[in-house]
Amino acid sequence: MTTAITDVEQTVRRIAEKALHASRRLAPVASADKNAALERLAELLASPETEALLAEANARDLHTAEEMELSEAMKDRLRLTPERMRAMAEGARQVAALPDPVGAVLESRRHAKGFTIEKVRVPLGVVGIIYESRPNVTIDCAILCLKSGNATILRGGREAFHSNRALAELVRRVLREGGLPEDAVQLIPTTDRAALTTLLHADDCIHCLIPRGGEGLIRFVAEEARMPVIKHYKGLCNVYLDREADAETAIRVTVNAKCQRPGVCNAAENLVVHEELLGTVFPRVARALSEEGVLLRGDGAARAACDQVGLPCDPVREEDYATEYLGKILSIRTVGDIGEAIDFINHYGSGHSDAILTENPEAARRFQTEVDAASVYWNVSTRFTDGFEFGLGAEIGISTDKLHARGPMGLTELTSYKYLIRGEGQIK
Amino acid sequence: MTTAITDVEQTVRRIAEKALHASRRLAPVASADKNAALERLAELLASPETEALLAEANARDLHTAEEMELSEAMKDRLRLTPERMRAMAEGARQVAALPDPVGAVLESRRHAKGFTIEKVRVPLGVVGIIYESRPNVTIDCAILCLKSGNATILRGGREAFHSNRALAELVRRVLREGGLPEDAVQLIPTTDRAALTTLLHADDCIHCLIPRGGEGLIRFVAEEARMPVIKHYKGLCNVYLDREADAETAIRVTVNAKCQRPGVCNAAENLVVHEELLGTVFPRVARALSEEGVLLRGDGAARAACDQVGLPCDPVREEDYATEYLGKILSIRTVGDIGEAIDFINHYGSGHSDAILTENPEAARRFQTEVDAASVYWNVSTRFTDGFEFGLGAEIGISTDKLHARGPMGLTELTSYKYLIRGEGQIK
Repeated sequence: MTTAITDVEQTVRRIAEKALHASRRLAPVASADKNAALERLAELLASPETEALLAEANARDLHTAEEMELSEAMKDRLRLTPERMRAMAEGARQVAALPDPVGAVLESRRHAKGFTIEKVRVPLGVVGIIYESRPNVTIDCAILCLKSGNATILRGGREAFHSNRALAELVRRVLREGGLPEDAVQLIPTTDRAALTTLLHADDCIHCLIPRGGEGLIRFVAEEARMPVIKHYKGLCNVYLDREADAETAIRVTVNAKCQRPGVCNAAENLVVHEELLGTVFPRVARALSEEGVLLRGDGAARAACDQVGLPCDPVREEDYATEYLGKILSIRTVGDIGEAIDFINHYGSGHSDAILTENPEAARRFQTEVDAASVYWNVSTRFTDGFEFGLGAEIGISTDKLHARGPMGLTELTSYKYLIRGEGQIK
Repeated sequence: MTTAITDVEQTVRRIAEKALHASRRLAPVASADKNAALERLAELLASPETEALLAEANARDLHTAEEMELSEAMKDRLRLTPERMRAMAEGARQVAALPDPVGAVLESRRHAKGFTIEKVRVPLGVVGIIYESRPNVTIDCAILCLKSGNATILRGGREAFHSNRALAELVRRVLREGGLPEDAVQLIPTTDRAALTTLLHADDCIHCLIPRGGEGLIRFVAEEARMPVIKHYKGLCNVYLDREADAETAIRVTVNAKCQRPGVCNAAENLVVHEELLGTVFPRVARALSEEGVLLRGDGAARAACDQVGLPCDPVREEDYATEYLGKILSIRTVGDIGEAIDFINHYGSGHSDAILTENPEAARRFQTEVDAASVYWNVSTRFTDGFEFGLGAEIGISTDKLHARGPMGLTELTSYKYLIRGEGQIK
C-alpha cells in the first residue's frame, strides 16, 4: 500500500520536474514555431484518422460512464461529437492567429547611471490545470498555454480519462514532430487522490494552478495548493433595477441576463429592485421573466407587488441570495436606495459580474465605483463577461480573485514579466 | 483556555471585517485627500510631541528586549532613533508626491454591439502585512497601502509591540482628522499565534498578504494562508563570469555585488566562473574579493586556481550553493559553458537577481532569456534591484513569485483592475 502511494507520488514528481525543464525550453521558442504546431494540431484534429482514434477512446469513457450510472447531463458533457472536434480544431486555428504576448517590452527606462532597465513579458512557466469531465478542456487549455509559452500539466477527471489521454497524446505528437519539447504538455496518468495532493505541493516546479469545475474541487485546490491558484468559486451575478431604470431596458436586459443561457457563470441569479419601482417597472420585468419560465422568489415587498398583478412569487430565504441556481430561478430583493443595493451585492455577490440599469449617470458612476466586482455593467447584460467578447481572443477561465488576473483570463494573463538590465559595468 | 482563544479569534475577525468595510470607503477617495493625510503624517512624525510619545513606547520595547536578552543586532533594528523618525516622515512626503495609480484607464474598447469596455485600475482592497522587529515597517507599509487606496492590517512582532502600536495610532489619528476611515489602518493587538492563524484564514476579508521577515515566518504564512501571498523566501543572487568577461568590469561588479552591503537580499552569494578564466580573470577577481575580507569557498578547479596565486579558498559543499550567507562569504562554481552556468543558476538561485559579465552580446542575450529570475543583469551589479532604483518610487517588498508582482513591488503592484461596461441596453 505504502509502496503504491510512493509510486504515484514519484510519477507525479517526475512529471512536474519534466514540465519545469520543458517550460525552460519552450519559453524562448519563436511565435512562428508555436503557431505552426497549433495549425498542425488543427489539421490533425479534423482528420478522419484522429476522429476514429478519439471516437474509440471516447467510447471507452462513455461505457464506463454507463457503468458508473452518470447522469445524462454528465454523459453529454463527456461526449466528443464531430461538431466538438471541429470546434477544437477551430479553437487551435484561432489561437494561432492571436498575437503572441511573450517578448513584448512593457516598460523601458534609463537609470541615472546610464544603464537601461527593460520590463519584458515572459511565460509564467508551468501551469497546472485541474478539471472535470469535459474532454475539450484538455485541448482548450493546452493550446492557450502553448501559445503563451507555458508548459501544462493536465489533471482531468476519471470519467474522461481515455478521451483526455488520446487528446494529450495528439498534442504531444505535434510538439515532437515540430521539434518542440513534448513534455510541455503532460497528462497525469492517474486520477488517484495522492497524485493530486503531490501535484498541489509541487510549488518548486509549478507556478500557477487553474482549477475548473465544481466549487468543492476548487475549494480543495485553493486550500491544499502551495502555489498561486487562479479561480472563481462561483458566478453569483446581480442585476439592480435603479429608481431611474428605463422600463424597456430593464425588461430586455434582465430577461437576457437570466434566460439567454441560465447554466453559465455570467447569468444573473439575484434581482435587486428599488422600492419605488415595485408598482411600475418591476411588475413588467417580473411578468417577462415569468413568461420565459423563470420561477421567482422574493422578499415580502416583491411578493406583494407580484401578487397585485397576479404573478406567482415564492418566499425567498436568506441563503437563496447566496445560491448560484444555474437554472431558471431568480431571487429578488427590494432596497430603499442605491447604497443598500451596493451593500447587498458586495455581501452576496461573488465579484464576477453585476449590472445597474438606470438612466441616471451619477447613480451608474457610484454603482460602478463601489461594487467590488471584476465586471460592472451599466445598461448592458452581464452575459457579455467572456474572453472573446472582451477582445482577449480566448479565455482559459474567469477569475474572481484580485491578484494577477481579474475577470476573463486570456493569453496575456498567462504571462509574467522580468526585468532585463544592460550596462557597462555600473556599480552601486 | 478555550474562551481565551475564542476571544482572540473574534477580535481578529472583527478587525478583518472592519478593514474590508474601510477598504470600500477608502477606494474612491480622491488623491488630494490621501496626499493631505500623508503630508499631515509627515508633519506629525517630525513633531517634538510625537517624538516624546514614540520614545516612551520604544523604551518599553527596548526594556522588554533587554529582559528577553535579544542580540545587539535585534535591539538595533528595534530602536526608533530621531534619524529613523525623520526617514519615516521623509518617506511619507515622498509617497505623497508619487502619482496615484488608482483610476488609471488601462484599456478601452468598443464592442461590435456599440457598448464600451474600460479596464480601470482599482485598489486590491485589504492588504495584510506580517513582519518582524523593525517598527518603521509599520509606517512604510501603511503609507504605501494608503496611497494606493488599500486598507492595511498590520501584524508586527512581539518585541516591537508598543512602538508599532504608537505608530499605528498616529496614522489612525491622521485618518480620523482627515475625514478618512481610521480602520483603513489597524494593528493586531496581540502577537498570539491563534490571532495569526485566524488572520491567515480570513480570505473573505483580506485580499493579499505580504510577509516580511525570516524564511521560517514566510514559509509558515505561505503554507497556512488561504489568500494570495506575495513573498520572497530569500535572495540567492548569482554572478556569472562568462568566457568573454572584461577583467576590469568583472572585478568592479563582482566586488560591488558581494561587498557593498552583504546583508541585503540583492547581494551576490554565488560566483559562477567559466573554466577558461581560471588562469586569467578569475584570480584577479578572487584577489579583489579577498582584499575586501571575503572568505572564498570553491570547487576543486577554483581552489586549484586560487592556490596557484597563493589565495586561500575553502572547499565548498553542495548545500553552500543554496545558502544565503548575508555576510562576507562567497561560494564559487566552475562551469564548462554558459548552458551549464544557466542550469546551475536556475537550480540554486532564488529567482531574485542574477548577473552575467561578458563582452559577448549573444551570450548576454541567451543568459537574459534563459535565466528564470525577476531581474537579470548584463554588466551591472545586482545591488540595483530596488523599487527606487527601478523608478517605482518606493517598494513594499520584492517578489520572487511570478504571479501579479515580480521583482520590486511598488504602488502599481498594490492595485488590481476592474472592467466597467457602459451601454444602452445591449443584450447577447
